[in-house]
Amino acid sequence: MIRNEVFSCFVFYAVLLVIKMYTIAIITGQVRLRKKAFANPEDALRHGGLQFHREDPYVERCRRAHLNDLENILPFLFLGAVYSLTGPSLTVARLHFLVFFLARVLHSLAYLLALQAPTRSLAYTAAQVPCVSMAVQILIHLV
Amino acid sequence: MIRNEVFSCFVFYAVLLVIKMYTIAIITGQVRLRKKAFANPEDALRHGGLQFHREDPYVERCRRAHLNDLENILPFLFLGAVYSLTGPSLTVARLHFLVFFLARVLHSLAYLLALQAPTRSLAYTAAQVPCVSMAVQILIHLV
Amino acid sequence: MIRNEVFSCFVFYAVLLVIKMYTIAIITGQVRLRKKAFANPEDALRHGGLQFHREDPYVERCRRAHLNDLENILPFLFLGAVYSLTGPSLTVARLHFLVFFLARVLHSLAYLLALQAPTRSLAYTAAQVPCVSMAVQILIHLV
Repeated sequence: MIRNEVFSCFVFYAVLLVIKMYTIAIITGQVRLRKKAFANPEDALRHGGLQFHREDPYVERCRRAHLNDLENILPFLFLGAVYSLTGPSLTVARLHFLVFFLARVLHSLAYLLALQAPTRSLAYTAAQVPCVSMAVQILIHLV
Repeated sequence: MIRNEVFSCFVFYAVLLVIKMYTIAIITGQVRLRKKAFANPEDALRHGGLQFHREDPYVERCRRAHLNDLENILPFLFLGAVYSLTGPSLTVARLHFLVFFLARVLHSLAYLLALQAPTRSLAYTAAQVPCVSMAVQILIHLV
Repeated sequence: MIRNEVFSCFVFYAVLLVIKMYTIAIITGQVRLRKKAFANPEDALRHGGLQFHREDPYVERCRRAHLNDLENILPFLFLGAVYSLTGPSLTVARLHFLVFFLARVLHSLAYLLALQAPTRSLAYTAAQVPCVSMAVQILIHLV
């Protein structure tokens, strides 16, 4: 499977996107420390006192970016793997993976930097196109 | 793998459920626009002003439906794939996938239409049964 | 695939972790019932009245534990499967899976029992080490 060229191409972008997701988690943690805004009283106590058990708008922004990744990148890990097994051409498959990858990187940047709307929504939509395309192609392949 | 009948059957229901998840995301976005309730100030600014950077009970309901899908459909994508590789009979496997599929569709309907309790909880529980069954069968197969 | 020793080892720990995630969902539901704190008005109505449509700090703690599992265990289901296909030694691979498994069990315990900081953060970090290691090894294998 790992010797299948399309599958390898998928795995490459998929692993980069998982690392991108982990990066958002690390950023969230750093912002919590810098802004002193902790989700749990035990963390607040360790970092100065219970008054730091509080919400912060930028921490919430990071969390929304992360959740949106879960909603979109995790299904891609499934769709991309199965799509790779349906025998698509490498060029077409790579285009699907690359568009998704670039659009999701832009989505994260647009979220974390609060870029002007509709940048983030357009990135979200651009990333959905290859996903819906793969879903439809998988269903056609099955029928 | 894709020629394995059980695996194909799994992929069919799994892809439909991924599309169902995407649909909830689209509904959430439409409700945000209609109710003018945006999670980010940059979105609110584009749609009338910062006063629309606010929460809405129905948007929150959609988000809970989506999160519950992440908690349940995403593990199914893993369990179903591995279970398919353990060589179950097609009839039994299809029953697992079909029960999960129908229960999760009912779960989403019960959530979005706020159907009387315990409709949603029963759908949730019904969907868990094939998942726990698959998990146990995988463990037995390994031992 | 299921006859591959490394893959079987991965599946074993992965299925246990999925069951661990399901357990957190069950605990959340039980805490909601015991504390009478429901996310939906229809659930509150069934259990005594709309005044129980409310938040509870311990329910929110359970939810954060669950969300953190989604953020970490679900990507592991992908990374572990692909890593298993790259032909690592069984001993090294088992060490990756075991460290992740134990660290995530500790993470859940630290969260649900509100253990003193930084127990939970250390468990989180310990679980990330094998994940990043697998991600890097997959990328090296591809190149």
